[in-house]
Amino acid sequence: MTRRDAAGDGLKELRDEIDAVDRELVALLARRRDVVARVAEAKRRAGLPVHHPAREEDLLSDRRRRAREAGLDPDLVEDLFRRVMRSSRVSQSAAVTARGVRPGARVVVVGGAGAMGRRLRGWFEGSGYRVAVLERDDWHRAPALAGGADLAVLAVPIGATAGAARSLAPVLPRSCVLADITSVKQAPVAAMLDAHPGPVVGLHPMFGPTTRVLDRQIVVAVPGRDPDACAWVLEQFTAWGAVVVSATAAEHDEIMAVVQALRHFATFVFGQFVSRVGMDLRRTLEFSGPIYRLELGMVGRLFAQDPELYAEIIFATPERRDLLRRYLETAAGNLDLLEQGDRDAFCREFRRVADWFGDFGGQAIRESSYLIEKLVERFG
Amino acid sequence: MTRRDAAGDGLKELRDEIDAVDRELVALLARRRDVVARVAEAKRRAGLPVHHPAREEDLLSDRRRRAREAGLDPDLVEDLFRRVMRSSRVSQSAAVTARGVRPGARVVVVGGAGAMGRRLRGWFEGSGYRVAVLERDDWHRAPALAGGADLAVLAVPIGATAGAARSLAPVLPRSCVLADITSVKQAPVAAMLDAHPGPVVGLHPMFGPTTRVLDRQIVVAVPGRDPDACAWVLEQFTAWGAVVVSATAAEHDEIMAVVQALRHFATFVFGQFVSRVGMDLRRTLEFSGPIYRLELGMVGRLFAQDPELYAEIIFATPERRDLLRRYLETAAGNLDLLEQGDRDAFCREFRRVADWFGDFGGQAIRESSYLIEKLVERFG
Repeated sequence: MTRRDAAGDGLKELRDEIDAVDRELVALLARRRDVVARVAEAKRRAGLPVHHPAREEDLLSDRRRRAREAGLDPDLVEDLFRRVMRSSRVSQSAAVTARGVRPGARVVVVGGAGAMGRRLRGWFEGSGYRVAVLERDDWHRAPALAGGADLAVLAVPIGATAGAARSLAPVLPRSCVLADITSVKQAPVAAMLDAHPGPVVGLHPMFGPTTRVLDRQIVVAVPGRDPDACAWVLEQFTAWGAVVVSATAAEHDEIMAVVQALRHFATFVFGQFVSRVGMDLRRTLEFSGPIYRLELGMVGRLFAQDPELYAEIIFATPERRDLLRRYLETAAGNLDLLEQGDRDAFCREFRRVADWFGDFGGQAIRESSYLIEKLVERFG
Repeated sequence: MTRRDAAGDGLKELRDEIDAVDRELVALLARRRDVVARVAEAKRRAGLPVHHPAREEDLLSDRRRRAREAGLDPDLVEDLFRRVMRSSRVSQSAAVTARGVRPGARVVVVGGAGAMGRRLRGWFEGSGYRVAVLERDDWHRAPALAGGADLAVLAVPIGATAGAARSLAPVLPRSCVLADITSVKQAPVAAMLDAHPGPVVGLHPMFGPTTRVLDRQIVVAVPGRDPDACAWVLEQFTAWGAVVVSATAAEHDEIMAVVQALRHFATFVFGQFVSRVGMDLRRTLEFSGPIYRLELGMVGRLFAQDPELYAEIIFATPERRDLLRRYLETAAGNLDLLEQGDRDAFCREFRRVADWFGDFGGQAIRESSYLIEKLVERFG
């Protein structure tokens, strides 16, 4: 018997032992899931909130302590329990979807055949609302469909929002909440206030139609008129697991010009240039670390989506286009520095920007290091 | 007794049950770790490779199947086992560090007091090599320190590499492998070949000095002279868990101009502009989804690091500076499009770039969606 064969026999036994351990792990996870479902059910019956962030953090601290006692890496154990708890939250949110804040209320989704419209329709229907969908060529049906509505949501492109508000408002009951979901808020909210004398709220869901579960997703809410009458709509998003952040229309639009328009435009410009350089994309990936993979992935992600969606975000307002022009001009301001190979000027500018970022740098390193590890773990 | 109190009692019991399950989970993880350590030890004794990607994939498929049988989400179970297996690999790689491919061989690290130099020194020493460190003002000690070297690694800035090769080579034994670790390869490899008549290999570790464990990290190797004599150096990196990718110096430099210089420069330009716009960074984070958080995190990450390092990468060669100039010019080419609000032209260009990205788009969506989920899970 060779050394390898002997090792092979020993290995077989050890592998069987790993299999046995893993079988027990899977069985325990299934048992945990059952107990957690009973906790959620008990909380629902008692009218208690299902998620309790503080208790989750306590639980994690306790599991880290136990990990250390068992000689395990506490980060490993924390990661595992975070993943398990996230999975529980998602399945509980899915269960919560069945309960509406105002089940039976009538919701009209204008543009309900679009991707976001379909998603909204599914969420409201899943929570027991009576949902009607109105399309562009459906205006003659508007009185029948929207006449008794408690909520009307405009899920049409930015440019069509004001027109849709004007067409719809005359048939809405005065008590109906009118909302939109476009990614700019000043003009649409003004148009809704102008068209409808009742409650108005502007919404901006900070996620796309590929998002199926709202757990921890952000929705920006811009109060228009009669916030008390609008409150149940925001509560419904919260019940679905979303985080609702309030802002004025002006603040929202100023921030989104950077968060959406500038960022997407910068990504567009980068992708445009690498496509012109004509490098071998796959070969560059073989050569490079997880950060490049992550960054190029964010570029590839943009170009895998709908150009019209990005055109809408980038060209939304003259102020946005002006911001993007200034971006290109600021970028071009670095030509001299490159021309002259002026490293000192580069380092001075770098330090000025680093000062502006301040503490965020440390946080960014922590967060991105964690993600890079995940990327290597999953796709490395 | 109120409904809440009754629920409270029931909840207490259920929570105790979760605690008990979790205690068992932690104990099982510790047991699994012990068995895996015995497997690794058995493999090492038998001279078998410790990692076996194919077996890992088989194991994951099997655990997914068991998850489905137990009514658990197979993606959840796969994520958990991937995390556990990564942890095992890392601790095994740490154990492997103790074994060198040529323990006892003499290694000289020039610039060993720098961050990467210190890291190299630690890895080689941990694997039983005799390591000497040579600094800029140490050249008079070079004959004593490098006279019997089996490997000399230049860990100095790009601009100092050629000079260091010329200063060191005369005292190296002819059989010594001469290597560098700078992020450009044409000029440094040429300088090493010119200075040293023996084996030469250019290395580019695609990670920074914050990387402590080499598991799955990429090292690009550019053959210079006598690859057989250099092979053990590459084997040592592989033994530490790194993935060694071979390329010519020209291919390496062409790809790195994009992968490093262009990417870092684009990030610099973006950070420079947002700092000038002067937005409220924290408030933008409250408003925005995980993708913005991820992208802004990559920008913050850059500015939290050493400007000199980035100046070195960006200004490395005239060809690089020319590429970056063309980038700024291409970017500026979009001014008209913004000026005229030409959405159609934007969409046409967008589709052209999307075609160039091809299949990569789908892969990028999958990978980044996974990471976004991780980001929400960990920091959401």
